[in-house]
This record gives sequence, structure tokens and C-alpha cells, in this order.
Amino acid sequence: MALVNEHYLKLAAGYLFPEIARRVSAFAAAHPAIAPRIIRCGIGDVTEPLPSAAVDAMQRANAELAARETFRGYGPGTGYEFVRKAIADGDFRSRGIAIDEDEIFLSDGSKGDCGSVLEILAGGGSANGGNRIAITDPVYPVYVDSNVMAGNTGPCRADGSYEGIVYMPCTESNGFVADIPKQPVDVIYLCFPNNPTGAMIDRPRLEAWVAYALRNRSIILYDAAYDSYVRDPSLPRSIYEIDGAKECAMEFHSFSKSGGFTGVRCGYTVLPKALAGYTRSGERVPLNPMWTRRWNTRSNGVSYAVQAGAAALYTPEGQAQVRSLVDFYMGNAAILRDGCRSLGLTVYGGENAPYVWVKCPEGARSWDFFDTMLREAQVVITPGSGFGACGEGFFRISSFNSRANVEEVVRRMRSMTFARATVGA
Amino acid sequence: MALVNEHYLKLAAGYLFPEIARRVSAFAAAHPAIAPRIIRCGIGDVTEPLPSAAVDAMQRANAELAARETFRGYGPGTGYEFVRKAIADGDFRSRGIAIDEDEIFLSDGSKGDCGSVLEILAGGGSANGGNRIAITDPVYPVYVDSNVMAGNTGPCRADGSYEGIVYMPCTESNGFVADIPKQPVDVIYLCFPNNPTGAMIDRPRLEAWVAYALRNRSIILYDAAYDSYVRDPSLPRSIYEIDGAKECAMEFHSFSKSGGFTGVRCGYTVLPKALAGYTRSGERVPLNPMWTRRWNTRSNGVSYAVQAGAAALYTPEGQAQVRSLVDFYMGNAAILRDGCRSLGLTVYGGENAPYVWVKCPEGARSWDFFDTMLREAQVVITPGSGFGACGEGFFRISSFNSRANVEEVVRRMRSMTFARATVGA
Repeated sequence: MALVNEHYLKLAAGYLFPEIARRVSAFAAAHPAIAPRIIRCGIGDVTEPLPSAAVDAMQRANAELAARETFRGYGPGTGYEFVRKAIADGDFRSRGIAIDEDEIFLSDGSKGDCGSVLEILAGGGSANGGNRIAITDPVYPVYVDSNVMAGNTGPCRADGSYEGIVYMPCTESNGFVADIPKQPVDVIYLCFPNNPTGAMIDRPRLEAWVAYALRNRSIILYDAAYDSYVRDPSLPRSIYEIDGAKECAMEFHSFSKSGGFTGVRCGYTVLPKALAGYTRSGERVPLNPMWTRRWNTRSNGVSYAVQAGAAALYTPEGQAQVRSLVDFYMGNAAILRDGCRSLGLTVYGGENAPYVWVKCPEGARSWDFFDTMLREAQVVITPGSGFGACGEGFFRISSFNSRANVEEVVRRMRSMTFARATVGA
Repeated sequence: MALVNEHYLKLAAGYLFPEIARRVSAFAAAHPAIAPRIIRCGIGDVTEPLPSAAVDAMQRANAELAARETFRGYGPGTGYEFVRKAIADGDFRSRGIAIDEDEIFLSDGSKGDCGSVLEILAGGGSANGGNRIAITDPVYPVYVDSNVMAGNTGPCRADGSYEGIVYMPCTESNGFVADIPKQPVDVIYLCFPNNPTGAMIDRPRLEAWVAYALRNRSIILYDAAYDSYVRDPSLPRSIYEIDGAKECAMEFHSFSKSGGFTGVRCGYTVLPKALAGYTRSGERVPLNPMWTRRWNTRSNGVSYAVQAGAAALYTPEGQAQVRSLVDFYMGNAAILRDGCRSLGLTVYGGENAPYVWVKCPEGARSWDFFDTMLREAQVVITPGSGFGACGEGFFRISSFNSRANVEEVVRRMRSMTFARATVGA
């Protein structure tokens, strides 16, 4: 009799985005006349066309595959040297960080690796002699769900949290940057610029995290998917800007939001050769060879044309186009920030991140205000509570949209019931 | 202290293909003058250019991403409807098999899913109350290694096999088709057309496997990556041609060898809604929703252009081009079969599969004959023992090569020491 992985049965029913899609569909079905007005600022998906440098490179690569002389079959499981070199040069060495090509692993996006990394770590969770997992609240749901699936948690509680996970509250009082927990933790998820709050960590607080991890021989899983949105040069774009991080951190990157690759699918993970975990008997085991073996056994790498497209983002032309894309979305973020502020709302994020994190007006709860926005303005936002209990009372609004839509969102918000008093409409 | 997955430490050092690469590099370094003569028939990688239908579709798709009006971001995690429909129609409904679009999951190739499927099944192996895993010998090494990594085995034995796996010998006496094991097994890997032996299973023996799985509530993981090479219309191209298979089998497909997609990366997995596993307490759990949840949590799907390329393989033009590619490689297989036979070798496979499975001459061991071929003919083959103990004494030769190379391989083999007596040279 084939047995299933029963940990899946602990998963709470509604993954956030399907629930949003359900409510939007129900609203559209009930109000067909105004359904075409709906503007989606819920999911963080880009809207602008791909950089031409990437498109041209992908077209050239596919043309190579169409001719016998230039045809390529299987590539290296962890990515071609040409793209790993472009990344190491462009994102690290040019900023004074020594990262080698064989510390970079190309992937089809950071979402996959954020979950797959658990495969090379001990399973079972702290209750079964495994790792004690620390996750921020609010958080990108993938970190939590992949830990549930891997059996690192206990059952789901009534509030949607899981037993066995050490939740680290991110609130107004700590500037949405997790404090170091009192109890020892082994694996720590951090994400900066943060999804969903748009918060950034400063260098001293990141130094404190690195010092903590080194002291406890913990591993930090640092999600830097939005690093290209960091504008303030005093803030770290990579955890490897901090001394010692190569001995305690993996870093996840994505071209989804820098190069508009949400449909193209490419990202990369940095796993320094200095990073190690431990056996139960305390023997040190370097993780880079384990991750290499994992990749070579489970994958034949990323599509060749996609790799060529990713490498093209590091050419001077590609870099200029990425900057222009990021500038465009950050312009949207400024409009959303200013617009929400002008309506008297308390606003966070959006300065070094594409997400604006807003306190719901009049103490409303997240899902209630989600429904209000849909009903009164036909605007889809993301309810903060969908990212965790500490997100309750907030909503996330994404700057990934056309300029016209973003301006229209602010205009519509002005005529919502809560806003009328403020703007005197 | 972060703990590693100690199951990785059980893995035998040499994955087959890296060891081949090492020996070839060493030979080339020691004999630089003849190194350029080396012909690689070791790894099963295609050589012919991509079908133009696929290239054109990928170019059009990338052009869409270059314009705002036609830009696409995140797609469905399990693949666009247009490609899942093309697959369901082209590979199943057109052959009288009822498979729905939501039973098809697009992937970046069958290698990944053959390993990832273990995530939705109970881990730990039979020794820890998990599943008893049955794997053929010889076998594609990924099945074994991914089970080791998932903790479903005990330690590695001196002969390279792992405790806890039920090995099913595939030998000349059973026509390289596994017999049903005497002891009950829960999860069964079958691959037809077979890699590495090139064997095919006939309908009565596949019916027996399905009946066994239904009776034991086992799951068959059916790897059909080479299905387009089946020439004999009486042989099953899919396990779903057998009644009842939808209740006991997943099937893995790849466009690597049909459409030459080894560098493009695309495949698909069929997980019928009728297929279920069980909890330890005997409760039936359908696997399709678990696999859907796994995909949506761990992936944002396959690159849009790649999906467009895969769908184009199902157009009339694409189908004709796939047939022509397969015919070409099967022509190579016939040359290799006839060539080896003419040298007095015992030859299997190559009639409904791109792989020819040959008994080493004069009772030689696999790695010894690998070295002999490299030294005397500068031809790289795959030693049969690299696929398992029952492969000892055989070698695999791949028909994925240019016609000129394949003819040259046969020519060179004629002048090898073992062949001189036979051919009277």
C-alpha cells in the first residue's frame, strides 16, 4: 500500500492568492457591469515588456538551436559558465564581494530554491531532532508552506500559524525588521527588501543577525529577490556585504522583478563554499557539494535561451534597461505612497522596495478592507493578514502595474467612503 | 546548530556520467594527438537541430513578451491550458485514452519530476514505516539517488546497491523486463522503452503489473520519456493503454528525445485524478490535489516561450518534424545494431528505443571494455555496470549522434582487437 506524505494534510486550505482570485471572481460574477473596471494590485506580477537586450539574446540563442553547427543539448545542471560569470561579476565582484562562479546556481526562479533548500537540511523539525525554523510574521507564504510539506512543523493552529515554527513578529515598533529571537534557532528566513512590508534592513541590524548565526552555527536563508529596488546606497543589497556572511548564509535572487522575467523564469542561488551544516554528531559538512549533487541529480538546468537572456541583463545595454524598468515601478510606488498618505493613511515601504504596506483606515481588518476596496473602488489589494497574524490590519499594494492604472487607483481611493472626510469630497 | 540531511552522506561517490567524463578527460590529456578523434556515444544527448515548428513558436512567444500589449508574466504553475490541451489531445485522446487537462503537469523535463514525486509520498523507507521502493537493475541512476536523498534507503553496500531498496533484476533471461517481486512493494519504477537496455514491455506483461499494483494498492511510476521511439504498434506507448492504470500509475514524459529539447528543457507528468495513496491509518488520499499544491507552492511553471515551443510539436508540421527526427535516430540505431551484430556481438534494444544494449566481447567487464573502446577506437560508450550490478558485462551505445559519427563508430569497431578475428581483418 503506497503511503502519502501526511504532512501535506496539515496545510491550511487557502493559499493566499487562490483565495484572492476566488473573491475577485465572485465579485465579478455578481457585478458584471463593473467587472471590467477591476484593477489588480494584488499579486506582485510585472506588466512592462521585457528588456530588448534579453529578448534579442533569447532570439539569437533559439536561432543557434535551429542549426546543427550551433546546436546545444544538455547544459551544466547548475547553469552555463557564461551566465554564472556574468552574475558573479555583475552582482558581486563589481561591488567588492568575492563570489566564485561555482558558488552560483542558476534556477528557474527563487521560489523553487527557497523550498528545495530544505532537501539538503535535516527534516522533521525541532520536535523530532531536526532544525528549529525561524520565520518572520508577516511573510511570503512559500517559506511556511514548504516547511509544512517537509515535515518541519506541527499542526496548524486556529489562527493559521503552525506549531513548531518560531515566528518572529515584524511590526511598526521594530520597523518590520525581525528581532533576534530569545530561544536558539537553526534556520532563519530573512527577506530584504521585504515582501510584503517593503521594509529594508540596515547594516548594523544585518551585522547583528550574521553575528548571531555565526555564534549559533545557524544558517540564514536570505531572500534578496527585490535587491534591485534598493535605492539608498547605505543599505545592503546582499548579505555578503557583511563580513562572515559567507560562513552562515545562502542568498536567493530572481530576475522576475529586475528583468521582468516572471514569465521567462530565471533566478539564482548563492551557496558559498565556506557554508556548512552539521551532522547530529557534530561533524561539519560543507553544503556547496551537497547542493551541487542535488542539482545534478534532480535537474538538467535552465533553458539555454533563458540563460542567454539572463546573461544579457548584465551587458551595459541590459543594465540600463533594468534600471529603467526599476525606475518606472519605483515611480509607481511613489505615486501610491503619496496618494495613500494624502488620504490620511499610515504608509510604510515603497522607498527601497516595490511594495507599499498600508494600515487599513479606521482600524479595519485586512480581509474586510480588501472587500471594501473591491466593492467601492474595484481595486484588488493583498490583505496583510494573508501573510501572517502580524499582518492583520494592513494591506499590501503592489507598484507592478501601468502608470495609468496606478494613477487611477489613487483617484478611485479618493472617492471611497473612508477618504471623503479627509479629502473633503 | 543547523543540521544537514545525513541521507546525502550515504550516496556513493561517483555518479555515472561524471565518472565517464573524468576518464575521457584523463585519456584526452594523456593522448593529445588522438583526442580530437573521440566520438561520444556515452550520454544520451541529441545532436540534430530543433524542429523549426518549435523554434518559430518560441521566437513568436519571445516577441510577444517584448511588447506591452502581448506581454505575459506569471503563468499557471502547472502549465498553460493551451499546451496541456495539445498534450492531452495529441498523446492521449487521439489514441483513445481519456486524460483531462488538469491531469497533466508541465515540467522542465522528466528528470525533475521522477525525483520530486517522492515529496508527496511518505518518506523514511520501509525500515521506518514508509514505502517499500522497487527499482529495476540496471536502471537510470536518478531513481536510486533521489530515493537515497529522500531517506528511503539504508546505507550503500560494497557493490553500489542500497539496503532497503527492492531491486528487480532485468537480464537476458527475462528479456530485460522486470518480473513481479515475490515480496509486496509499494512504489514501483518502470521505464519503457527502457533506458539503458532499450527493451520494451509487451501488453500482457504490463497488464500483469497494473493488476499487481491495483491488488496491492501500489503506485507505478512509469517513465515513458522515450515513448516516441516505439515502432511496433502492438506495444503500449503509455501505461494508460491498460485498463485500471489510471488508478495505480503516474507517467513521466519528456520532449528531450522527441523534439530534441535536451537544452530547451520541457516535459510533463500525468497524474490522473483517480490515483490515490493512503495514510498510515488507511485513509484514501487522492494525489492529484497534493501534486497541484506542491507545484503551486514550489514553482511558477515553465518558461512561456518553452511552453509555446512544446505545444508547436503537436501541430501537423511539428508532428512531421518529430517523426523525421525519431526516424533519423532510429536509422542510427539500426546501423549500430547491424554493425555490432556483424562483429559477432550479442545485441539487444534499438528496435523500439534509441539505445542499443550490447554484451561485451570475450566476457569483458563493463568498465574494462569502456577503457578498451576509448583506447582502441576513441569511442565513448556507457558501461552497463554503471546502471546497476545486473548491467555488468554489457555496454549501452546511444544512437543520438550524427550519421557520419555512427558510421565511423562501426568502422572503428571493426579494427578493434576483439573484432579482427570475426571480420577477418
